[in-house]
This record gives sequence, C-alpha cells and structure tokens, in this order.
Amino acid sequence: MGLREELRAAFGPRALLSPAEKGVYRYDAILVGEAPLAVVLPESTAEVQALVRLSQRHGVPLVPRGAGSGLSGGAVPLGEALVVAFTRMTRLEVDPLGRTAWAEPGVTTAQLSQAARPYGLFYPPDPASSHTSTLGGNLGENAGGPLCFKYGVTGDYVLELEWVDGEGEVWRLSREAYDLPGLLIGSEGTLGLITGARLRLLPLPRYRATLMALFPGVEALAEAVSQGIALGAVPAKLEFMDKSAVNAVEAYLGMGLPRDRALLLVETDGDDRELVEEELSLLERTALELGAEVKRARDEGEAEALWRARRSVSPALGRLRPKRVNEDIAVPRSALPRVVGELEALGRAFGLLLVQFGHIGDGNLHPNILYDPRLEPEERVWALAHEIARVALRHGGVLSGEHGIGFMKRPFMAEALDPATLGFLRRVKAALDPRGVLNPGKVLP
Amino acid sequence: MGLREELRAAFGPRALLSPAEKGVYRYDAILVGEAPLAVVLPESTAEVQALVRLSQRHGVPLVPRGAGSGLSGGAVPLGEALVVAFTRMTRLEVDPLGRTAWAEPGVTTAQLSQAARPYGLFYPPDPASSHTSTLGGNLGENAGGPLCFKYGVTGDYVLELEWVDGEGEVWRLSREAYDLPGLLIGSEGTLGLITGARLRLLPLPRYRATLMALFPGVEALAEAVSQGIALGAVPAKLEFMDKSAVNAVEAYLGMGLPRDRALLLVETDGDDRELVEEELSLLERTALELGAEVKRARDEGEAEALWRARRSVSPALGRLRPKRVNEDIAVPRSALPRVVGELEALGRAFGLLLVQFGHIGDGNLHPNILYDPRLEPEERVWALAHEIARVALRHGGVLSGEHGIGFMKRPFMAEALDPATLGFLRRVKAALDPRGVLNPGKVLP
Repeated sequence: MGLREELRAAFGPRALLSPAEKGVYRYDAILVGEAPLAVVLPESTAEVQALVRLSQRHGVPLVPRGAGSGLSGGAVPLGEALVVAFTRMTRLEVDPLGRTAWAEPGVTTAQLSQAARPYGLFYPPDPASSHTSTLGGNLGENAGGPLCFKYGVTGDYVLELEWVDGEGEVWRLSREAYDLPGLLIGSEGTLGLITGARLRLLPLPRYRATLMALFPGVEALAEAVSQGIALGAVPAKLEFMDKSAVNAVEAYLGMGLPRDRALLLVETDGDDRELVEEELSLLERTALELGAEVKRARDEGEAEALWRARRSVSPALGRLRPKRVNEDIAVPRSALPRVVGELEALGRAFGLLLVQFGHIGDGNLHPNILYDPRLEPEERVWALAHEIARVALRHGGVLSGEHGIGFMKRPFMAEALDPATLGFLRRVKAALDPRGVLNPGKVLP
Repeated sequence: MGLREELRAAFGPRALLSPAEKGVYRYDAILVGEAPLAVVLPESTAEVQALVRLSQRHGVPLVPRGAGSGLSGGAVPLGEALVVAFTRMTRLEVDPLGRTAWAEPGVTTAQLSQAARPYGLFYPPDPASSHTSTLGGNLGENAGGPLCFKYGVTGDYVLELEWVDGEGEVWRLSREAYDLPGLLIGSEGTLGLITGARLRLLPLPRYRATLMALFPGVEALAEAVSQGIALGAVPAKLEFMDKSAVNAVEAYLGMGLPRDRALLLVETDGDDRELVEEELSLLERTALELGAEVKRARDEGEAEALWRARRSVSPALGRLRPKRVNEDIAVPRSALPRVVGELEALGRAFGLLLVQFGHIGDGNLHPNILYDPRLEPEERVWALAHEIARVALRHGGVLSGEHGIGFMKRPFMAEALDPATLGFLRRVKAALDPRGVLNPGKVLP
C-alpha cells in the first residue's frame, strides 16, 4: 500500500484531514513552512505509535503540533512531512491529594489550571497564549510565562513523562537515574513525541497585588528591576513594555496609557496580605527613586485591566505592520540596562520598527521586529534578528528564553555553541532518533 | 610509558597518592569495593582532561569521588580503576546581584551556603552530610535533604554545568536546546566528570519555626503528614524517625526523648512571622487529632536541639550494629501510611533490625537494615533490601529518592524499568561514553 492508502486505512476520515483543511497546518503564530503531505489527529498513544511506524515504513518525517501558537517555527513542516496534531488527546486527571495531574498533550495550559482551581491548586507556567497553547507544545518548548520568575518554567513541574520515540516505542519515565524526561522537555519534538505528563500543582496563593510603573525610558526601567531584585524582592511577575509597545497597546485598547513612557508591571503574591503589599512597596520605592510614576491597582478589577494591557501586546503589534519576527533572548539580569539600550540603538541603526517587551525579571526579552514585506526587505529584518541574537550572546545570554529555536534561530546556533558541543548534541539526536524521522530541520543547524 | 610512569610524570607527588593513602578510597560511607590502582587529585579542569586521556590510552576506567559520604557505592571502585578525587577543586565565586555562584566540585555544600549568607542568600539543597559532602557528589547523585520538600533538589538549582566527557572534551552548557546538564545531574559520574556548576541562590527567609510531634506509631505519623499536606501546608522540612531511630538517638545523645514514640519534626519558614507560626499550627492540629503529643521549639536554641536529633540518626545507628544497609525509596505521599506499615512488618518477618527515618514530606524514606555480619548472614540482609525495593515499586514509587543507584541498587534496576527502557538508557550511555571508561558497573545493570 502507498502512504495515502495506509493512512486512510489506519486513521480514516475520523483522524485524517481533507486537503482543504491541511492549509493552516503550514503556519505557526508567525512563520510559514510547506503544506504537509497529510495531517493526522491521533486519539491515543497507540495511534501515535502506529503513525510513527507507518512513517518509518514510508521514510516520511513527522512534525508534532499542538495549537500552533509557537513563535519559532517548531511546529511548522519543512519539506515533505506528516503533521501529527495532538489537539484530540485531551485526557486530564487531577489528583488533589498528591497535588499532581496527568495530562495528555492536547490539554490547554488554561484548562489544567481551571481543573486544579476547585482543589485550591494551580499550575504555575503561564505563557501569554495559555488559553490556546497546549501542554504538549509547552513541554516541547519548555515554555515560561510571567509567573516563571518566581515559579520556574514548564520543566520544573514535570514529575513523569510519556513519549513515543522515533522507532515507535513508548516510554514512560520518572526523572531518576538518567533524566531522560528532562532531555525530552524543550527538545521541540526532535527526540520523541510527548503523549502525556504527570505535572506538579501548587497551592494557590491567597493574596495578590499589582503595580504599574511608568519610566521615562527602558534603561531606567531595567535598572529599577535589577536593583529591586538585588534588594531581595521576589515578585511573582515582572513584565515590561517599551514606549512603542505601550503606544501600540494604547492604540488597540484605548485604556489611557501615556504614549511616551516605558511600562513595568509587577505582581507580588503570597498568603499574607501585609507581606504581599510590603514586597510591592520595595519595588515601588526603587521605581520612584529612578524617576518613575507609580500606580497601584486598588482591586482585582484594576489589576486585571493592567494585565490585559500586557497580554494584548501581540495582537496590538499585529496592527502596526503586516509581519513581524519575535525574538526571545535571555540575558543576565545585571546586563539588562545595557542590553535594552543596545537593542534600541540597533533598531534605529537598521531603520526598522523594533518593539521590546517581555519577562524582564528573568532577563527574558522579546524584541519584536515589525515590518511590511512590500516596503522593507526581509533580508534586513533577518540581519537585525541575527544582530539581536549576537547582543544576547555577547552579554553572556542565550538565544531562547522560552520560545525555542525552531527553524527561526537554527542558523544562529552555530554562533551560540562551539562545533564540538554541536557535534555532541548531534550524537544525542542520533542516539534517540537514529532514522531522523522526528521533526527534521529544527533546533540543530 | 606505563600507566604508573605517565601518572607520575603528569601529576607527580603533588596530586598522586601513595599506596598507603589509597586504602580509604575503597569505601564510601557504607559500602566497600576494591583498592584503586591509583588516586589522583586534579586541581583544574585541564588536569581532569589530561587524566581522562591518559586513562583512555591505558584502557583503565575512572571513578569520580567527592568526600566519599555517599551511601549507594557510586564513588566506590569496582575492578581495576583510577579514582579521581575532586577535593582540591574548590574555587567558589558568589555573584550576589545575579543570585548565583560558580562552584567547583570539591566545594562542600555547607561552604556554599556560608559564602552566600553575608549577602542574605542561601543554597537550599541540604543533605544531612552537608558539612562534608561536596557539590560534585551532590550533582552526581542529584542530592536532596530536609529542605527539598519545599525547595526542590540539587538539579533544580543548576543553571549551567561544566564537565569532561569520556573522550577528554570539556563541555560548558546552560540548560537550553537539549538539556544535557540535566542528563548529567544524577547520572553518578557514568556520563561525564563534573568540573563546575553555576548554581542558583535564594533570599534567606526571615523567620523559621519548629515543632516536634510524638506519635504512638509510624502509621499515624504518616497519616498526619498525608492529611496535613492535603490541607495546604507547605512546610520547609518534614522529617520523621520511627521508634527504633528515636531509641538509638536517645541512647546516643541522652536528650530526654521518649523511647516508645515515633517522631515527626516540622519546620516552616517565610518572611512573615505570623504566617510561619500559622502554617505550623495547621500541622499541629492534624498531629493532635491523630493522637500525637506536640512540642513547639520556643527559640532557635530549642529548634537546633531538635534538628540535632535528626542529624544524629546516622552516627547513632552506627552504635547499634557494626554494619548497615541504607535504603532510599520514594513513594507517593498518599501511599505512605501503608508503605511504612508494610516495611515494619517486613523487618519483623526477616528477624532483622529495621529502622525507618527520612524526608517523609516527599515520601522519601530511608529504611536502614542494621546487622552484625558475624551473626546475621548478609544474604538475608540483601534479600530484605530487595523486598523493600519491591514495596516501593508496588506502590508506584522509585528505587532512589536521593542517594542514587550506585552498585548497591543496580541489581534491582531490572525490576524497576522494563527491558526496552533499560536498552534505551544503555543507548544514552553508549552515545556519551562510547568507550565505557566512566564509572563502570554503576547505575545500569
């Protein structure tokens, strides 16, 4: 039987998309690849195994995909490939006594938190896309989010992982002896297809408090963050937007933000109201000393409005230019003031619209290059993206804070890692996916 | 040149031990192997590389070793081998602004915490042996300690890792793309020799409170822990000792502990005194409801006395019988009451002195079998150790909470992991140490 016949026999119309439906599976939230040969929606680990074996027989690679909200092309097919969309694998079981949940990869991040809430528990990793992004994608990219400054990233919450390897075998391992689950997490589907995870849940903090600080510029803002943390603050969230991002959000939401200020949002949380407020005051004082105007949210409603501003950055930027490249560097906190300044200067030097925002507490910045491909050559955009990556590496940072390497930053990897280290990563890939059927063309250059 | 001549030429008397000094390098804190061919004490990463290359040329394996305080034989040489003792690699640099430290493997766990303290910071992983055990050993075994219930284990604090592989190459990687540092952590020196790590530090909590609860038996104690945590308590430490352990400590310290009670120690910590006391009260109420007598430490002095009781378990047990086997299982918290009961029954059935203590908040138990090899055949002791491992596996637990597999629990691995998974781990080992020179005979059966 040919590939198509076998796919039809094994998955039928139930789990195999029509050619018309396949088109959208070329894209993630930013990048575009080639139309897949077929899109299969498995409903069980056994179906994922069957699919891997089928793809092996036909020598066709597999590209795993959740909701497609990624930003570095990890879920985008390159060349002839089958897309494995995990959106129908949505089993979710919460164990309140053990404070864990078993989740299949198609469960969205927000669904997990909602399921945990009635037991007074929550799942901390909170990517901005949590209402659409799936746990499978979060695991593949080792996603973070605003809360990751205090609470850590996806991988810090994985107790046990199940995946199907490049030969169709199922593994279900806890993190003992050799931490293979840890190796799979963040490997962007290049070492195995994740089919389930036991995740750790935490008790919900009783109180939260939010503050907005408006700075004359991003360098003073970065300085305030660096100083505030050095003084001992451990806020739950520390997010920033530069003037262009504030401007874009104001044009989008019309909520009365001043258009000539860089914006810092801080949330503290805990079980003691006074302490939560006190921790916020520490950052408030640091911000005031560095020339910021400060506004505290008086209630949950005001806090929610401020956080809506932050979550609206992506859609707001979409209205400024038809296309964008979303960078995701992470640098040591002490280098923040210099790095944000250098990035601003780079944007001006290239004559491109560069907008900065992100999880500044972790030093994780999302410099976005917004452009119109009819007016601005894409080579210049990619040259700027490359320079941004170089700024990160020069200051002891890394290429990706949480979005992954995908195919977007694959060409930069040769500068981030020396040839010997890259050779070592290739040996790992060859050991776990000897036939190279898992998400080829991603991560490793 | 022969092996000895080359060693002498490269390391001379400065870093090469005399035959008389080599004897102690056969042992860890419990187990014994064979006398090493030689013991080398490198002082730099370059010397570690030279040693690996030398050992390759002569086909002699290497056994990495810190302070030798391990409990599963990970640092013990089996067959002809060179011991690499890291106790002279002790460079330590704290970066207070970034809240990190770079440490070489010979730095002890306590030295790191002491160096961080002047900046109001601390390093949470706190194995009982922290004053002697080295960070290299902690990394190799992914060590925990009482604080790991709230704060997590060694691997959770590693930002960057440097190691020398089985071919003498140096790697220094952060945890991005493929998390190879995570794979090295806990691999007990079988995948690489760790030569340095960048570790995360946390702000010291301002307040701590300690409580001792005395229960009629371990099952009620385990029930109290399981219920207290389900109610939302997140104590910093949750440690227990069964009656035999209490008895042994009382005989050793004479501090007035009742000899017919099982003992639970709880420490809560945080920046708000009231909340720290409140969290302790939650566990106090649960303990009282389950028939415990409760005593709160009134000050740091009283708290310190209580914690000294817990830290003295190991030396105290050493006085009961000349030898012991220290098990290290971890089980789901909800299974604790059944597991501690089954272990007690097993000890009685085998007619051997079985003592239980450990980090009960994580479900990490240290059942110790104490014996006199002149009176009690060692085969029975190992048969009981094997049954203890089976109890853990039957209840969904694992063979090692924090001490590692070493060679002690290597024979049990075949029951813990299916043949396909073991084959997979062997592929990983072959990829990273193709000539098998790194700590052979450990972890994988």
